[in-house]
Formats: sequence, structure tokens, C-alpha cells
Amino acid sequence: MIALVNEAISQLVERLRAGDSRALGRAVSIVESSTGTGAAVQLLEACFPLAGHSVKIGITGAPGAGKSTLVDRLARQYRDAGKTVGVVAVDPSSPFSGGAILGDRIRFQGFAQDAGFYARSMATRGALGGLAKATADVATVIAASGKDLLFIETVGVGQDEVDIMRLADITLVVLTPGMGDDVQGLKAGILEIADIFVVNKSDREGADRLEAELRELMSLTNHPTEVEWKPEVVKTVAATGVGVAELLQASVKFQKWLSCDQRLEVRRAKQWEYRLMEMLRAELLREIRDSGLRESELKMLASQIAARAVNPYRLIPEFLAGMRSGASGTNV
Amino acid sequence: MIALVNEAISQLVERLRAGDSRALGRAVSIVESSTGTGAAVQLLEACFPLAGHSVKIGITGAPGAGKSTLVDRLARQYRDAGKTVGVVAVDPSSPFSGGAILGDRIRFQGFAQDAGFYARSMATRGALGGLAKATADVATVIAASGKDLLFIETVGVGQDEVDIMRLADITLVVLTPGMGDDVQGLKAGILEIADIFVVNKSDREGADRLEAELRELMSLTNHPTEVEWKPEVVKTVAATGVGVAELLQASVKFQKWLSCDQRLEVRRAKQWEYRLMEMLRAELLREIRDSGLRESELKMLASQIAARAVNPYRLIPEFLAGMRSGASGTNV
Repeated sequence: MIALVNEAISQLVERLRAGDSRALGRAVSIVESSTGTGAAVQLLEACFPLAGHSVKIGITGAPGAGKSTLVDRLARQYRDAGKTVGVVAVDPSSPFSGGAILGDRIRFQGFAQDAGFYARSMATRGALGGLAKATADVATVIAASGKDLLFIETVGVGQDEVDIMRLADITLVVLTPGMGDDVQGLKAGILEIADIFVVNKSDREGADRLEAELRELMSLTNHPTEVEWKPEVVKTVAATGVGVAELLQASVKFQKWLSCDQRLEVRRAKQWEYRLMEMLRAELLREIRDSGLRESELKMLASQIAARAVNPYRLIPEFLAGMRSGASGTNV
Repeated sequence: MIALVNEAISQLVERLRAGDSRALGRAVSIVESSTGTGAAVQLLEACFPLAGHSVKIGITGAPGAGKSTLVDRLARQYRDAGKTVGVVAVDPSSPFSGGAILGDRIRFQGFAQDAGFYARSMATRGALGGLAKATADVATVIAASGKDLLFIETVGVGQDEVDIMRLADITLVVLTPGMGDDVQGLKAGILEIADIFVVNKSDREGADRLEAELRELMSLTNHPTEVEWKPEVVKTVAATGVGVAELLQASVKFQKWLSCDQRLEVRRAKQWEYRLMEMLRAELLREIRDSGLRESELKMLASQIAARAVNPYRLIPEFLAGMRSGASGTNV
């Protein structure tokens, strides 16, 4: 754990705000590795007011869909247009945690020495209080450095990933033809968060069919949050760059739409309703663990409950009462 | 809210334990409609020690896969074999809440006046603290009435449903050919909880292909929790009863396997590790709401956060401190 006094934190925030990539990297490490500690909370509190400028673009899709290549291409185009860019990449299925950093060095080598670019892969193992919370925190810190665009890239499986996409102002859902990765796979909450569908690897067989299926789906479905916006479908071949300019155009078009009639503000407010409850839950879970319910005790209790030797309906109120009275080491 | 004194609750539990279906129905209504109240907690506490006898069979699958018909068929067979049967049916997508009860009367009319059978559809709207928690509570009460088998039937979409399946001793995953409902749709956590795959409507085209795909998947995958058990694949036509006897056999075979080497105990203990944390989370969320974070306040706060007028990283610790000090009506 990294201990920092108040003054050191405000200096760190000043430096990352001024564009110092090393300070930014250090701040990200603090919030990522010391979730819930005083230093992390102070840092996030200081970063939050600075974090409103970035347009957050979420990118989700199955492993192998080409999300990374798309993000690299889009980031390159934005950099060439003079915009600063940040990236948070989350791969919960990756067996490597430390390894992710090496992966970044290889992946983003085209941006070496570029002070207007910063990328971070999430070391997700053991993220206390949930992957979505950790990603949100890292995004807040990178956004506080003033990046114009912030890409949030994650694998689109499970509730955690849907939650992560709730951070984004714009969400791109990446599909590919022929991977069994058809519209049926979109059931679990992804459909309602997609603003733009990307049919990547569109030089493969089945791209036209997939595009047609998506368009048909769009015509059948009311986008639940904004009925006026029908998600566009854009075909790309990220490996060669085909369609990336069109994707960027679609993204800019959506940004324009979002900037009218308070739509961005309404969207962010809706997201915060959800995120605030999630932050409370994550913090409470952390407190539960801190207040004595360690892994080994949890296992022992679970066995006793399974054997009906402990009654969970009696245990829970007792445990919470103990937590509230602040009795440390409450032996539940 | 239904107010009951301690004595009335213990009488109610005595009656439901003795097989009184009206008392059981009343108890289920209390836990379902009064989550977290003193009466509901007392009732659950009294029911829990009695609830270990039931074998809980979870059934999940897409809407229209034929889960209800399968449950009816299996329930009939178990009843004919002299076993008592309970059913909890959860349909989060149903637009009706009160209507579910009428639906039950039509659906289970073959069991009318049968004291060895009890079914309840969950009115899921507004289930405070989560659908999984509410389902678990209702299951506990029905199990306390001593039913030999307890079916838990739910739509297999989303995290809530995966959580519900964590209640079951045996999990059946129902698929149908030709609904785009292929093995690709199994990604989101369902695969690892399936003990038996049911290919229902197997008189339709594509049933053999689906069966082959499932078997191939089984040969590729290690079932994460019990490497020794490879989920069986059983073909049925629930509408006519074809294959239902084989499904029951497969279920009994799995039950036998589960009863050896403490496997059931180990499985239930693992489930309780998860469920205990979930119960704590649900209870804490309820307390958050009770302690002043009402819907309207949450919306207002979310708007202020979106406008960066309120800092969530400062708000959360303040709110939790307020909760702990027991200051009612804390104005966050």
C-alpha cells in the first residue's frame, strides 16, 4: 500500500492535470491497487471535478472480435486530428495480471513518447468491490488528466461488463460474421446499451447477413433509453483500416445528437443513479470484509449453514448490528 | 404489511410443517410481500432449520423453451411415485404480477385439491433487495413444509437468474432446436451451472444437431465445480411426455452421484458462501433505502453528480458514516 499525505496527493493531481504521464500512471496505480484506502479515496475525490471534459467511448464485444485493433485505429485518427486520447482496457478473462502491462507496451508502441496518449490495461484479479467499480475509478483518474477522448474497452460478457458500459457516453458493440456471434448473442443487456453496431472483419462471409439482421433488429426494437436514436450499423475491417473513418463519422454524428437537448446530461444522470448505488454496494461489501468476515470464516460459516448448524436468517441481523456498533473482530 | 406476534408465527410454522397448504400460502405471502420486516425475518428464521429435506431442482431456459410443461410433467411423475412436490416459478419478464396467481390456477389445475403439491409464481415487480433473494426466501418457506422435491423455474437470462440457479441442488438447462437457441447462447454463466441439458421439442428439425453440439461442448469443457460429472443430454417432447421418464431417470442418477462422498454438502456449502454475501448485500441495500436514500433523492443526487456539483467520492463515506451513526433522515 502506498501512503501519501494530503499535500503529496494534491501535487500528484496538479502534475497529472498538467499532462505529466508519469504522474498519471502513478495515480492510476494508486486507485487500482489501493481501492478504498484513504489515499485512493482522496485522489478520486480530487480527480472527480476535473473528469467531466472527456468524451467516454465504450467498446465491447466477444474476445477476438477485433476491439483492440479498432481502438488503436480510432485513437490514431483522433490523435492525428489533434485530440488527446486515453484508453482503459479490461480483459477479465486474461490469465495474466502483471503481464497486461507488457502487452500494453507491445500493443500501443505506435504511441510511444506521445504525451497526448495514455493507455492502461486493468489487472482485474482480486479487484476488491468489483471490476466495474475499479474500471470507473481508473477512468475518472485518466479523464482528470484532461484527455479529449477516453476509450473504455471490455469483453461483452456478463453483468460486470454491462455495468462497465454504463460508464460510457457512447457505446460501440463490435460483432463479427461467422463466429456464431450473431444477434442472438446480444440478449443479455448489450442491445439496450448499444449506440453504434460495428460489423468488424466485414471482408468475411456473412457480413452482409449480419448487417441485415442488425438492421432488422433495430427496426423491431425501440431503443429503450432514447427512442429517437436508432443505433447505426457500420462495417469495418480494422486490420486494414477499411471503414474506420466511417465509424469515426458515425461516432461524431452520435456525439452531436447527444449534445442537443440536454441528452448527454440526462444520460449521465441516469448512469449515476445506477453507479451511485453500485458504489455504495461496493463500499459496503468492502466494509463487511474488513469488519471480520474473512475468506476462511466465510467458508466455515457457509459449511455450517449448509449443515443447518447456523441459521443465516439469525446471523445476518446479528452481523450487521455488530458492524454498526463498530465492534471490531465481531465473531459471527 | 402483516403484523404478527411471535406466537402467531410459531403457530403458522407448526401448521405449514404439518402440511396445511393454506398456512403455507400465507407464510409465502408474508415473506414475499414484507421482505425485511420483523415478521418475515422471524418466519424465515423459524423455517430455515426445517428446510434441509427438499431436493431442489432448478430449471432454466429461454422463454418458450417449454420449462413450465416440463415441470408439470416431472411434478406429475414424482406425485405418482408418492413424493410431495413444491414449485417456485419466476418470470421476471412477465408484465403481470397479481396475474401470476390466476395463471397458476390454470397451469396447475391437474393438482387441484392435492395436499402433496404446492406451487407459487413470483410476483417479481418491486422485489426489494433482488429477485434472487426473494426467490430464495420463498423456496425456504416451501421447503420447510417438508416437500420431497422443490422445483425452481426461471428464465435463464442475466445475472439474477444465474444467482437463482445457485439455490438448486440439481440444475436442468432447457434448450430447443431452431430458436437460434444454440450452444453459443450458453456463454453467460449457464454452462457452469448445468448438471443436465434438456433438448426439448426434440421432434423439431435440428434436435440431433443441437444434441451433438452439446455433447461436443461437454467433451471440450471441464465442468468447473465437479470435474467427475459430465452433464448428460436428454431429449424430450414435453407436450406429449416423450423423454420425460428418461429425464427423471437422469435426474435420479445425478441425485445418487450427488449423495456420495459429501458432494451435496460441498455443493451447498459453496452455494452458501455466495448466498451469504448476497444476503448481506441485499440487507445493506435495504438499509440504505430505509435510511433516507429514496428514489427521488437518488435521482436528484445523480443529476447533481452528472453536473459535477456533487462529488460522489466525498458523498459515499459521508453517507455511510451517517448510516452508521443511526442519524435517521440523513440528508445526503
